[in-house]
Amino acid sequence: MNPLSAAEAAAAIAAGKLTSEALVEACLERIAQREEDVRAWAWIDREQALAQARRRDREAPRSRLHGIPVGVKDVIDTCDMPTEYGSPIYRGHRPACDAACVAQVRELGGVILGKTVSTEFATRHPNKTRNPRNPAHTPGGSSSGSAAAVADGMVPIAFGTQTSSSIVRPAAFCGVVGYKPTFGVINRAGLKFLSESMDTIGTLTRTIADAALLVEELTGMEVTSFDDVASLRPRIGFCRTPYWNQADAATHALLEAAARRLARAGAKVREVELGEEFGALAETQIEVSSYEFFRALTHERTRFPQLISESLTGRIAAGGRVTREQYEAGLARTERCRKRMADVFLDYDLLLAPSAPGEAPHGLERTGDPIFGLMWTLLGLPCLTLPHGTGPAGLPLGVQFIARRGGDSDLFIAAEWARRALA
Amino acid sequence: MNPLSAAEAAAAIAAGKLTSEALVEACLERIAQREEDVRAWAWIDREQALAQARRRDREAPRSRLHGIPVGVKDVIDTCDMPTEYGSPIYRGHRPACDAACVAQVRELGGVILGKTVSTEFATRHPNKTRNPRNPAHTPGGSSSGSAAAVADGMVPIAFGTQTSSSIVRPAAFCGVVGYKPTFGVINRAGLKFLSESMDTIGTLTRTIADAALLVEELTGMEVTSFDDVASLRPRIGFCRTPYWNQADAATHALLEAAARRLARAGAKVREVELGEEFGALAETQIEVSSYEFFRALTHERTRFPQLISESLTGRIAAGGRVTREQYEAGLARTERCRKRMADVFLDYDLLLAPSAPGEAPHGLERTGDPIFGLMWTLLGLPCLTLPHGTGPAGLPLGVQFIARRGGDSDLFIAAEWARRALA
Repeated sequence: MNPLSAAEAAAAIAAGKLTSEALVEACLERIAQREEDVRAWAWIDREQALAQARRRDREAPRSRLHGIPVGVKDVIDTCDMPTEYGSPIYRGHRPACDAACVAQVRELGGVILGKTVSTEFATRHPNKTRNPRNPAHTPGGSSSGSAAAVADGMVPIAFGTQTSSSIVRPAAFCGVVGYKPTFGVINRAGLKFLSESMDTIGTLTRTIADAALLVEELTGMEVTSFDDVASLRPRIGFCRTPYWNQADAATHALLEAAARRLARAGAKVREVELGEEFGALAETQIEVSSYEFFRALTHERTRFPQLISESLTGRIAAGGRVTREQYEAGLARTERCRKRMADVFLDYDLLLAPSAPGEAPHGLERTGDPIFGLMWTLLGLPCLTLPHGTGPAGLPLGVQFIARRGGDSDLFIAAEWARRALA
Repeated sequence: MNPLSAAEAAAAIAAGKLTSEALVEACLERIAQREEDVRAWAWIDREQALAQARRRDREAPRSRLHGIPVGVKDVIDTCDMPTEYGSPIYRGHRPACDAACVAQVRELGGVILGKTVSTEFATRHPNKTRNPRNPAHTPGGSSSGSAAAVADGMVPIAFGTQTSSSIVRPAAFCGVVGYKPTFGVINRAGLKFLSESMDTIGTLTRTIADAALLVEELTGMEVTSFDDVASLRPRIGFCRTPYWNQADAATHALLEAAARRLARAGAKVREVELGEEFGALAETQIEVSSYEFFRALTHERTRFPQLISESLTGRIAAGGRVTREQYEAGLARTERCRKRMADVFLDYDLLLAPSAPGEAPHGLERTGDPIFGLMWTLLGLPCLTLPHGTGPAGLPLGVQFIARRGGDSDLFIAAEWARRALA
């Protein structure tokens, strides 16, 4: 396991103290040791990864990502590696073109290490990955492979995608940092769409700084330096959400203790109530997204119905029954709640909320409940989950921070403050 | 040339008075006669089109689109026809999967007639298509082939896409109805992205009813019947836009006469001023879209720079110089103007504005100025251009109607009222 974060490794590479080849070699060794248990990779080719690294070692650093290996969730296109979207329909499929974020990583001098396992079209139907903390438990989904690979030290950064809770939930279950940007921040060209009004590309990393590093390089966003984090006194809204009673006792206790601890460390913490309409947002997310994926997956559902899982088949059929009227009512409700959130964030820098109902459930037949991601993804707000504490089975728990739309840079800084306060 | 609209042809097919095969055969004949002059098609295969039609003729009608041939702009993926995105980089490229809108047309019983010519990646750099009204003039772009094919009677409906003015402008130049829906109405899975916050799939048709028919079938949207159109008295805002002085005298006269005529026919017509900030929206559209296409086209610009036109190369480079701060400022300005438009549409059912600065310019080296589309596309508003009058060279002019976000159904009805009033 390579103990360096991406930022640390890139600094070492730039200083000539580490080569990309050595770093990639260390990742490949870890994968060779652990992949049989973890099953995080949909595709990886040792020689191809090393060849990229050696090419990087011959160049002057192109960016702060130079020489860094990156895992890519298998719903994101790569022109030189198969891209199977977690579905047997696309066995061996090779896209003609890299997705924008992949091509950008190459341009920035990164190394595309391989493709990480996705659930079926980034929906709930599980794939082969296991939780690296305990292989009898789910790693969560749909960014199963990205979360597991990063948690297990196989790669420092991986791209994930979130439509419901597909970055935050597996990050929490595996014990890593999961960052879902504000809707639209990372370019989506070359992403296999499920629900185009929500699908968001984000990152799985071990540190907040690594998530910030990648998004800064991709977008030109400037994150204020972390140097002055200690002097912050963030205004934090403790948001139990309308779904609080779906979280378990360990999560209740964890969040309540975290709220107290953040207050003791100097944050202004108050409980925040979002209002009654937010209680309908989980159902709204399901209606809006399934209306969309019924359409987005028309090719697959009409030509290859026998190659779609039973559970997804049922969810697609439900999406086909959502009327345009219901869909538009859902969009209108979302818009009202977005306006309300803009007001909430006049009073708060961050919201604190559960990342998931509890630790990773036992068994590999399900990927866990996305309930604590649905609302935030529908609203397009940036979210970051931090590993914090453990559950009754000794598996990681997480706390989720949410910021205002477009407030990704502030989210990193305030979440880093919170991380230190909770450490 | 087949004189039937899609709605008329579909009714005849459903009534057993016409076969899809005969309809497709008539389209193919027209194409055989005229394609050498018009050059609307990127790819068409006679036998494949007829085979689809014969299959439709053996089935019970699946929808009101059953048996109808549809042209598909070549930036929209098709699994059984090449998809070249208007670029030599993708010569012969065959996607693995149909775009959502293509697969939906097949599911609805439509016939995918062929691929219509797009400019390079749906940008401004022209392709081979000529204006069917006068081949020495541009058909407009980027949906050049779709507009020309529909105008020339080669196909009753074609998909186009608009990021700047790529449906409305070629529709006006070729003398057909161009409909750009509210942002997001037609599912975009399988569309080659240029600017994901603006790219919108829409239609080129000869009638308003055909545009309504297709979008209703794709989305489940209900368009109130056109039966009561005569009793409408729409409130119409005559919007010269901040770019009025970029339109020519013929367009000025056309719009002013149209406003008077609509008022005489019973509409409440007033001039509407949008406010100073709207004057910056054309530049904002260019900044926001080019920031995005710099990223979306990373694969192409890094691997195949020699296969990208000089003009697009320059525009991509400019996009790379747009900072994240400028981009976010552009999004914020857009959001303010969207709010203002929501207020404007409390007082108006429709806005009336120019479709283009004038008739199709002479020459094939440029596709004309998109200025009268930029703002509306950036704002995500539904737009419909109607052929109306001719310019000094005898080529078609258009008038553009714009409705509130999500008001696509009302747009059809009110535009149909206006069409009759102007006829």
